[in-house]
Amino acid sequence: MPEEKSGGGGGGGGGGGGHGDGGDIYNVQAAEILAKEALLLPINEAAPIYEKLLATFPTAAKYWKQYVEAYMATNNDEATKQIFSRCLLNCLHISLWRCYINFIRRINDKRGSEGLDETKKAFDFMLNYVGNDAASGPVWMEYITFLKSMPAVTHQEESHRMTTVRKVYQKAILVPTNHVEQLWKDYENFENSVSRTLAKGLLSEYQPKFNSAKAVYRERKKYIDDIDWNVLAIPPTGSYKEEQQSMAWKRLLAFEKGNPQRIDVTTANRRVTFTYEQCLMYLYHHPDIWYDYAMWHAKNGSIDSAAKIFQRALKAIPDSEVLKYAFAEMEESRGAIQTAKTIYESLLGENASVTSLANIQFIRFLRRTEGIEAARKYFLDARKSPSCTYHVYVAYATMAFCLDKDAKVAQSVFEAGLKRFMQEPGYILEYADFLCRLNDDRNVRALFERALSLLPPEKSIEVWKRFVQFEQTYGDLSSMLKVEQRRKEALSRTSEDVLSASENTLHDVVSRYSFMDLWPCSSKELDYLVRQEWLAKNTVKVDRSATLNTGSMIDKGTVGISARARSLPQSGKVVRPETSQMVIYDPRQMKDVLPGFISLGRGMIL
Amino acid sequence: MPEEKSGGGGGGGGGGGGHGDGGDIYNVQAAEILAKEALLLPINEAAPIYEKLLATFPTAAKYWKQYVEAYMATNNDEATKQIFSRCLLNCLHISLWRCYINFIRRINDKRGSEGLDETKKAFDFMLNYVGNDAASGPVWMEYITFLKSMPAVTHQEESHRMTTVRKVYQKAILVPTNHVEQLWKDYENFENSVSRTLAKGLLSEYQPKFNSAKAVYRERKKYIDDIDWNVLAIPPTGSYKEEQQSMAWKRLLAFEKGNPQRIDVTTANRRVTFTYEQCLMYLYHHPDIWYDYAMWHAKNGSIDSAAKIFQRALKAIPDSEVLKYAFAEMEESRGAIQTAKTIYESLLGENASVTSLANIQFIRFLRRTEGIEAARKYFLDARKSPSCTYHVYVAYATMAFCLDKDAKVAQSVFEAGLKRFMQEPGYILEYADFLCRLNDDRNVRALFERALSLLPPEKSIEVWKRFVQFEQTYGDLSSMLKVEQRRKEALSRTSEDVLSASENTLHDVVSRYSFMDLWPCSSKELDYLVRQEWLAKNTVKVDRSATLNTGSMIDKGTVGISARARSLPQSGKVVRPETSQMVIYDPRQMKDVLPGFISLGRGMIL
Repeated sequence: MPEEKSGGGGGGGGGGGGHGDGGDIYNVQAAEILAKEALLLPINEAAPIYEKLLATFPTAAKYWKQYVEAYMATNNDEATKQIFSRCLLNCLHISLWRCYINFIRRINDKRGSEGLDETKKAFDFMLNYVGNDAASGPVWMEYITFLKSMPAVTHQEESHRMTTVRKVYQKAILVPTNHVEQLWKDYENFENSVSRTLAKGLLSEYQPKFNSAKAVYRERKKYIDDIDWNVLAIPPTGSYKEEQQSMAWKRLLAFEKGNPQRIDVTTANRRVTFTYEQCLMYLYHHPDIWYDYAMWHAKNGSIDSAAKIFQRALKAIPDSEVLKYAFAEMEESRGAIQTAKTIYESLLGENASVTSLANIQFIRFLRRTEGIEAARKYFLDARKSPSCTYHVYVAYATMAFCLDKDAKVAQSVFEAGLKRFMQEPGYILEYADFLCRLNDDRNVRALFERALSLLPPEKSIEVWKRFVQFEQTYGDLSSMLKVEQRRKEALSRTSEDVLSASENTLHDVVSRYSFMDLWPCSSKELDYLVRQEWLAKNTVKVDRSATLNTGSMIDKGTVGISARARSLPQSGKVVRPETSQMVIYDPRQMKDVLPGFISLGRGMIL
Repeated sequence: MPEEKSGGGGGGGGGGGGHGDGGDIYNVQAAEILAKEALLLPINEAAPIYEKLLATFPTAAKYWKQYVEAYMATNNDEATKQIFSRCLLNCLHISLWRCYINFIRRINDKRGSEGLDETKKAFDFMLNYVGNDAASGPVWMEYITFLKSMPAVTHQEESHRMTTVRKVYQKAILVPTNHVEQLWKDYENFENSVSRTLAKGLLSEYQPKFNSAKAVYRERKKYIDDIDWNVLAIPPTGSYKEEQQSMAWKRLLAFEKGNPQRIDVTTANRRVTFTYEQCLMYLYHHPDIWYDYAMWHAKNGSIDSAAKIFQRALKAIPDSEVLKYAFAEMEESRGAIQTAKTIYESLLGENASVTSLANIQFIRFLRRTEGIEAARKYFLDARKSPSCTYHVYVAYATMAFCLDKDAKVAQSVFEAGLKRFMQEPGYILEYADFLCRLNDDRNVRALFERALSLLPPEKSIEVWKRFVQFEQTYGDLSSMLKVEQRRKEALSRTSEDVLSASENTLHDVVSRYSFMDLWPCSSKELDYLVRQEWLAKNTVKVDRSATLNTGSMIDKGTVGISARARSLPQSGKVVRPETSQMVIYDPRQMKDVLPGFISLGRGMIL
């Protein structure tokens, strides 16, 4: 990463998401204030603050750096070493690592050849971890300068040193950094100073590799510039800034995965790994990054590495169920059944809090890996739990039916569940679906009737809907109309306006005479009918209830409530007309006979 | 309706909907201009204009009135009568009817007792049709005045006249009109002038009825005031004005249906009929009003009347399929199978334009009313039509399976259809559903494979989705993962970015480990994953294709494409890493051994 952007000393930054509310441990603003305060305190007072901050933000390189620098300022080498050993490998942040190398150089400065050796090892160690960073150029240069300054007495020693320097140059000019051109120039001078004849061959061999690194750096820089190296890792909030950062990282990862430099695969893969590790410093709580990282390993054949990523992921986000399923799935896929089972068992956790989904997935897992009997046993246990929901019954019955082809077991599981879940519309619908698969319409009807006699109207809406659909397929016209009418009446019991709610609308006709995606009207007509129904429900109702109250004046004796109207379950407020004496108006019958038109006809029209 | 609002002479108005475009026969603006022009022309030139207008707007009382007044102005009584006979019964509009009664009075003025008789009949006729109108008050008063002026020579004649007047008063004071109070006062005076003793009993009997009419008028007026009596009837446009009017009418209808006056049922029903007829003058092209009207009749036991309404409805909106189904349904419901069949046949129309839905509904109708064999015969014919779609096969097979319990016939129908509709994803899915009902997973798989080998990727999306769902229920882990992978690869063939489209995401894991409404993550997490996937598809793709081009520089020889990568159907652009030499990064293994920290450990870390 470019040094000029890194979090440097203390303060500043705080760009991470909108986690500004109190109570949340991932309070970015509060953390930044604390970190600033710690800067002003003596180390023994600051240390607990840093520990607290780093417990919440274990990948915050800038806090680690501030912490370690505080110890370094007091020359407490032991404490400094302890801090470095805790943070370096989790924080591939070049500023922090440059701190480290400076520290190593200082403590080994006076230790002679042993000290030089340790320093050289530390450089190699550092460049192995962060030598692919786009901001690692100065470190490579520093290393080369250090190597060149190594004492060499014998000719052999000098030749060895020259070989070492050459190797490091040849590595350094492959890394797409800001300093790759300077490094190339230095390398040219170096080779020419060693041997003009040899130089020509070597330089013409490395020239295209350097060109490629230089070109790739230009591309790489664009991606890197989009990344904010100062944010703290917090769980996803969905903020715009956060999404921008997540996408910037994904673009960089995709770029590195594409191996734009066409470099050897080992190096290319190390860069991808390096990028994922850097990414996870910031998107530490983002499960999809962990998953992608693990899958990238798995895809490249290293499932053991993938498993290790999953383990780290579950340390970062311990309550992520889906990461556990993903992990178990990968283990099961490679035949590590016992490992997979252990992961499933961690999902099942303490008996009290087992979710139905975990039970279901575990039953399925057992069915796949240990067979019918193991699944059955677990189901029989799981159903005993008071927190077991109907889903477990449905899942087990479906398994018995689809996988074991055992309709009897499936049906008896559904029946057993019915005693417990009669009040669950979702269960009724699943059972009805199952009976429909068996084409057992008599039992479907019986189930609907049983359920509807028990369910309160507000819970029966979906059941009625399915009953109507069922009759549209299995019934005749009258059973279809009857169920629709019953539905309207049953559901109107909850609504105030009985009359309009239980009326058959033209939209109902459209529903009855549709089939799949075919409609007995244009979409414009359908829109119109839907809109009319909506308007009627939402406009007429209000006005009518207002008037019906004013209408009850006199003459109640003359109102005949027909038998049909009385048989309906409705309030006494709404009165249906007596139909026996009704006169029907039909203009067409008498078009040509108007009174007073002698020429056209005669007689009164009534 | 209130007279002050009625369309009166010509001109004005034009409030009906936004039908202002040329080409449309229901162009309200153009019609209003034409009608204004006609006013200035002599009747022989105006008549064709009126005929044209009234052919389009047969219920436009204002045009009829203008037309008939033009003839009346020229004293053309025959023509006047002809016009009245064509319009009165379709236009229950009080202004038009008052024109009529004025005309009748004029032509019978000099005809002595015969003329008086005709005039009386005309009054009775008129009040029978529009006597319930809220604006009919003046007509009642005029009638009473007319009756009172009838010559009565003998005492018997006088007594008869008195009885007639009393009856009309007693009718008039039951109608909630603006003049009901005046009529009541007149009636009081009338009774008191006849007999003070008799008056007391009669008036105290009628007082509460009058009170009720007066109170109901106040309510009724509110509804009536919302109605615009000047609009022209055009097909629904969905305009705000139109919806307001439609709702105003529905409120008025609901009000009248509620019989707020608690009047005798016959009268109450006549008012509802009257209101529907008035409503249909304006909402002539609104199928739901016709349907509600017919259903109101049917509900009140008069299915013959309902049938007549349907017939009129189909004259008004001849191309309304759904009204035909509604009509056929009603006839079938009452056992009028032959009538229903005739209606169905009108839906089937000329062979070329038969819709699949009409065929399906007719097959079902035949199955219900004539049995399996009739349905089978019709199906065998219908399938021969080149316009027959797969829906007909699905419907027939479903019928055979669900109603006749004949899985063999059902399957052979599906198989026959497959030869024709192999390219229809919708058909594949229905057939797969059917095979799933049979629990025949081997054939489901075979069907999916067969279909997917033939369908182009852009048409196979839904089929892949169902195949994946199917394997989630019927398959084991590896078949499930395999199909998902195959889907990704197949569908990514259409997208440019092979790599990311075919990658397994954490969101896929969520899909695999969900069950019904149970999810292995919170809805917040799910939102996050869906959003990330969306962002990745829509952001990363663009940037990557840009970089992949710049990346192809040198060193192609060093890139090893693994066997796995090569076996995938993808373009050569994207290179997969060689995994054999990959180094895995795992910080936790070596946490405590950093070089340079002699006290903590030794050795290089690689």
